[in-house]
Amino acid sequence: MGRWEPDSRGRLQEAALALYSERGFDQTTAAEIAARVGVTERTFFRHFADKREVLFGGSELLRERIVTGVAEAPEGHAPLEAVARGLDTAAALLGQGRRDLSAQRYAVIAANPELRERELAKLADYAAAVAATLRHRGVSEPQATFAAEAGMSVLRVAIERWVTSDDDLSLPIIMRDSMAELRALTAGG
Amino acid sequence: MGRWEPDSRGRLQEAALALYSERGFDQTTAAEIAARVGVTERTFFRHFADKREVLFGGSELLRERIVTGVAEAPEGHAPLEAVARGLDTAAALLGQGRRDLSAQRYAVIAANPELRERELAKLADYAAAVAATLRHRGVSEPQATFAAEAGMSVLRVAIERWVTSDDDLSLPIIMRDSMAELRALTAGG
Repeated sequence: MGRWEPDSRGRLQEAALALYSERGFDQTTAAEIAARVGVTERTFFRHFADKREVLFGGSELLRERIVTGVAEAPEGHAPLEAVARGLDTAAALLGQGRRDLSAQRYAVIAANPELRERELAKLADYAAAVAATLRHRGVSEPQATFAAEAGMSVLRVAIERWVTSDDDLSLPIIMRDSMAELRALTAGG
Repeated sequence: MGRWEPDSRGRLQEAALALYSERGFDQTTAAEIAARVGVTERTFFRHFADKREVLFGGSELLRERIVTGVAEAPEGHAPLEAVARGLDTAAALLGQGRRDLSAQRYAVIAANPELRERELAKLADYAAAVAATLRHRGVSEPQATFAAEAGMSVLRVAIERWVTSDDDLSLPIIMRDSMAELRALTAGG
């Protein structure tokens, strides 16, 4: 498929984000998303289990990448160093996507309390997976949990900066900068 | 009211936590809670807006105490120092309560995905309030957010240790110990 003819899944995702932004998530139906793309509602449900899946469908892959990054950090790396490796892989994955779509996704979630709670639950889920990976590397509790949760704060804040700021910094650069800010905080206090 | 005759609110709370523990949160009705205490369902709803309020009714006060603690930290305290003051006030408040009731509350929430999401949303809400207080003290972003969210990790972990561990350490002691673990983490990595 050529660059100007994205697959149905991609076109459905784009249409969904546009409609969620225009009308709000609750006011948009799967049928309307399908209609905008010119496919049947059935096609929508072949690609997404429900409306929410459009927003959270990538989370399994993201979690896997983060965990792999942490697990593959060189032996002897301190907990926060290993977490930083996981964030690098996350930034590489997310940074490949279109920033305008990430920005729409961010705004849709921010506008809806239920979606915000779901997003927090996803981040907590990533943090638990990262903490388990750190324990596997020999990091004890509660440091594994603190390192993992601080890392997910960095992830969330970096994505927010990426999609809301006017400058054109790449997500990997913003991620590293945010991680440095976390370190500076704790070095000083 | 004497020690052996707690008020209706306290008795309802105790009965609710016992029933949620025995049967599960979803399988317990307000009518059953009221019946166990020997009051009418109407009395239950005079004290609590709904079943969930029994678990989260104290969160406004807790947030206020944390924020006050942060706001009243001596000028010039580093962000994490100010957050530690907020956690001290939280530990003082929560540590006054009965540990067995906090343990029941913890187990009920841990067993129910919807309640876990609500608890995460509360912690995110505290973190946002603490970050705003830090900004008011002159701390810039993203450090205000990182300090606030790391503090809420410490709060959550300390409460978990308090209610699940076999030793008899007080919550204020566990809170300070957990804060020290956060510092050790970031000092080393």
